[in-house]
Amino acid sequence: MTPTQNARPTPPIVSKIARSGTDSVTVFGQDLIGMLGTVNLGDFAYLEIFRRLPDKNESVLFNALVVTLVEHGVTPSAIAARMTYLGAPESIQGAVASGILGLGNTFVGTIEGAARICQQHLPATGLHDLGGAPRLTNDEIEKLATRIVAEHAQKKAPIPGLGHPVHKPVDPRAQRLFELGRELGFDDSPTRLMEALSRLASERCGKTLPVNATGAIGALASTLGVPAEVSRGLGVIARAIGLVGHLIEERRQPISKSIWYRAEDEASADD
Amino acid sequence: MTPTQNARPTPPIVSKIARSGTDSVTVFGQDLIGMLGTVNLGDFAYLEIFRRLPDKNESVLFNALVVTLVEHGVTPSAIAARMTYLGAPESIQGAVASGILGLGNTFVGTIEGAARICQQHLPATGLHDLGGAPRLTNDEIEKLATRIVAEHAQKKAPIPGLGHPVHKPVDPRAQRLFELGRELGFDDSPTRLMEALSRLASERCGKTLPVNATGAIGALASTLGVPAEVSRGLGVIARAIGLVGHLIEERRQPISKSIWYRAEDEASADD
Amino acid sequence: MTPTQNARPTPPIVSKIARSGTDSVTVFGQDLIGMLGTVNLGDFAYLEIFRRLPDKNESVLFNALVVTLVEHGVTPSAIAARMTYLGAPESIQGAVASGILGLGNTFVGTIEGAARICQQHLPATGLHDLGGAPRLTNDEIEKLATRIVAEHAQKKAPIPGLGHPVHKPVDPRAQRLFELGRELGFDDSPTRLMEALSRLASERCGKTLPVNATGAIGALASTLGVPAEVSRGLGVIARAIGLVGHLIEERRQPISKSIWYRAEDEASADD
Amino acid sequence: MTPTQNARPTPPIVSKIARSGTDSVTVFGQDLIGMLGTVNLGDFAYLEIFRRLPDKNESVLFNALVVTLVEHGVTPSAIAARMTYLGAPESIQGAVASGILGLGNTFVGTIEGAARICQQHLPATGLHDLGGAPRLTNDEIEKLATRIVAEHAQKKAPIPGLGHPVHKPVDPRAQRLFELGRELGFDDSPTRLMEALSRLASERCGKTLPVNATGAIGALASTLGVPAEVSRGLGVIARAIGLVGHLIEERRQPISKSIWYRAEDEASADD
Repeated sequence: MTPTQNARPTPPIVSKIARSGTDSVTVFGQDLIGMLGTVNLGDFAYLEIFRRLPDKNESVLFNALVVTLVEHGVTPSAIAARMTYLGAPESIQGAVASGILGLGNTFVGTIEGAARICQQHLPATGLHDLGGAPRLTNDEIEKLATRIVAEHAQKKAPIPGLGHPVHKPVDPRAQRLFELGRELGFDDSPTRLMEALSRLASERCGKTLPVNATGAIGALASTLGVPAEVSRGLGVIARAIGLVGHLIEERRQPISKSIWYRAEDEASADD
Repeated sequence: MTPTQNARPTPPIVSKIARSGTDSVTVFGQDLIGMLGTVNLGDFAYLEIFRRLPDKNESVLFNALVVTLVEHGVTPSAIAARMTYLGAPESIQGAVASGILGLGNTFVGTIEGAARICQQHLPATGLHDLGGAPRLTNDEIEKLATRIVAEHAQKKAPIPGLGHPVHKPVDPRAQRLFELGRELGFDDSPTRLMEALSRLASERCGKTLPVNATGAIGALASTLGVPAEVSRGLGVIARAIGLVGHLIEERRQPISKSIWYRAEDEASADD
Repeated sequence: MTPTQNARPTPPIVSKIARSGTDSVTVFGQDLIGMLGTVNLGDFAYLEIFRRLPDKNESVLFNALVVTLVEHGVTPSAIAARMTYLGAPESIQGAVASGILGLGNTFVGTIEGAARICQQHLPATGLHDLGGAPRLTNDEIEKLATRIVAEHAQKKAPIPGLGHPVHKPVDPRAQRLFELGRELGFDDSPTRLMEALSRLASERCGKTLPVNATGAIGALASTLGVPAEVSRGLGVIARAIGLVGHLIEERRQPISKSIWYRAEDEASADD
Repeated sequence: MTPTQNARPTPPIVSKIARSGTDSVTVFGQDLIGMLGTVNLGDFAYLEIFRRLPDKNESVLFNALVVTLVEHGVTPSAIAARMTYLGAPESIQGAVASGILGLGNTFVGTIEGAARICQQHLPATGLHDLGGAPRLTNDEIEKLATRIVAEHAQKKAPIPGLGHPVHKPVDPRAQRLFELGRELGFDDSPTRLMEALSRLASERCGKTLPVNATGAIGALASTLGVPAEVSRGLGVIARAIGLVGHLIEERRQPISKSIWYRAEDEASADD
């Protein structure tokens, strides 16, 4: 609250995102009507993030990144959404919101961590000079990776985006995304950095630490120029789609009640 | 809670959505790796909803429907997301969730209402026999619409999906979406029903009530076979994308503080 | 969005809830500083709902109602909150929000349903003439209950607030709350109505249908004058408290990962 | 997802919070029925956090802390909740959740920051030896505060819990809460630490930096033994109550539409 006597000065309220007239709607200056039937949902998401439509290659890579994040099966986020749907079936938006809230530091946060490493150490990437990242030599990448692994080892901190319980020795999603970025001719410096980190970290701790899907997405999001702080938004967009899929399955073939009853009965059993 | 002595019997927990092996991931039986670089985000959303990929025409229409819903400027939902971001900038997922929670009966609910009308009265539409809807004759549509308008007038209930404060005499988004559905050769029975409802309702109450975007989406979602109860999910998917766009703008050029200060100072001014 | 040329007229923005000066804060006209150390949290919640502090008896009954709703063990709402905390431990507010979102029609909605029955048929209750409800005679209550049971039987609709899987033949929480309302001298018309509905519905369908906790709370919320549409808010207030308790236990002794792994492994097992 | 061939070993699922029998319910080992009518909501919240009921003095101080946080007028969190209610009036739980999501680092986070300072530097406080904190001498406090102020100045980091735009030279809420803690005979080491930080920081930067409400709550929560990471939960509990008050006012006298229209019309006006 503020003292009632006087109002605080405030800057004007401006948004450049959308404009609407009696027979027109524009989004970031593009005619919405003209985009209906020609622009796919992934490209429109790109427009929302970059304020321009992607070119052909950006479209392919961006759609692939987000598609990778849509579905991961019966995750904590999907269970939360299904539990919420059980209690409030009248409100699909509440169930999806409930699931999205779990996209925090533990899971999607690793995309952000991997993107941050790439964007701190490969300064030319990032929204500002999109695509303008100079290719680093392999020697430069190797030096950089060696330093980063040492720093993390010293802090006993894991390197975000490395390691997977199931996908070994390689995560097929990461492998395909990296391959795609190269086929499409994007600067592969972030990719090579993550690959070098994986190799050096695996050597150092003597177990296989493949670049996982979030690591690859953090690297390629950096290539495309998505700022690290926003990269989490890619996960949110993707999982909102996946959660709707889970709620449709929950309507048809519910599992939330079994999960609940079993957990509750075991949790409250006498010791 | 349950009595601690015994556990309740529960059905098995099954989900058919995703499977994962050391070097493979499938989603609804499709190889995820193979879809990276070839399937766009809208088509993947279609896969989550229909458990199969769309054909070319279904892809164009479905992407257009969802794209239409992504962006509506500084809406209550966008304001809620920006306010939440002001308080919790560390948690983009919370800000998006906050915005999604406003996608209830007032706004997105009209998609559901329009879809329900189409699916109640055009029984052959709906997930079960996708695309199998027989074309109704114009006379049949006219009779049906006359009855529906009379029923709503009697209950003094507005017909969902009709009317717009700005887009008159036609909503260009609805017009384009209907056109698209016809170009692509889909059964236009739901489209003709909404058009007839618009014409007859406008005559009856003596003011222009165009089919608006939510009305068109409700009709075409029915054409595609999205059950009414799920149609709200299309809005949730779309707005999650738009909200990320608003949060990126909020980071660059914040407006939440101005909206807050002005509202608070006026609200707490002495009378 | 609106046409850019002109702004819409809007009513003034007014809130009467709080005022603040350099050395004072008032809430609904009461001096906040003076309430610190003298007013308990339940009474302050009463102030938020009724815009005045409760008298002694209102305080006792209101606190009892809300306390009853705080804790129900490992519910779907608690599981959702714990799952969200697993993914986003940095954001307790997100985990609590996730749990609150499940307080919809399935569970807390029955409070609203029971309150609606009481407030439709006992018109003098309700926020507007708080406490002014005339006592109905037992004969009047009996006639009323008979009619309501018949109506629900005809619609094959269950009567909200009746029946419990565990607490039979009586729900001890409902019993104690009703007793408390009577000890404190409140009009017991809503209580007698729910008791009559329980007796008559049990007779009609030949199984014990006790008034459960939500039924008792719906009745006594009506006695206190909480409008049915707001009664769900009592559950939200209460469960926010209970969910914090669950998250503290989850930090100390996590169960979310076991619930997740077991559900996921069973759900994705080959058929 | 996990490989489908085998299930992961998982620890048992245990919760000690609640037990229920046919005619009994216990919460943290206490008989719920016996608490109805005798335990107020704040004391029950204390039970959820500390797993035991408070003594008389703990009850007074704890209730005062949480009451202080309930209401702050038309905040960003209240605006988010009202905007969400405008879009989804059918779902009060969604509107409250939307408001709670803004209780992040910017606002409620300062409670956590102040509590962390107290709990790092006054190690005997904290959940583990509740109330066992030894009183530090004023000289010890002074040395400690001098060091903390210097550290923050060096990092150019503000000290959490100090400074207020309106409440100068003192925040009456903080003053009253500190006074209360002393009247009730609690160890005032955290209080003296915050007071010393306020004095020294004000001297150093040459402007009045009073201990604000969140600073006082962080200090007194430490006195009571609420771990810093949980202190945010106090804000969530409190604001859930306040948000219900705002939604009730929004129903009676809506302001969300005016806030929305004005923001949208200004934001989308041509430049």
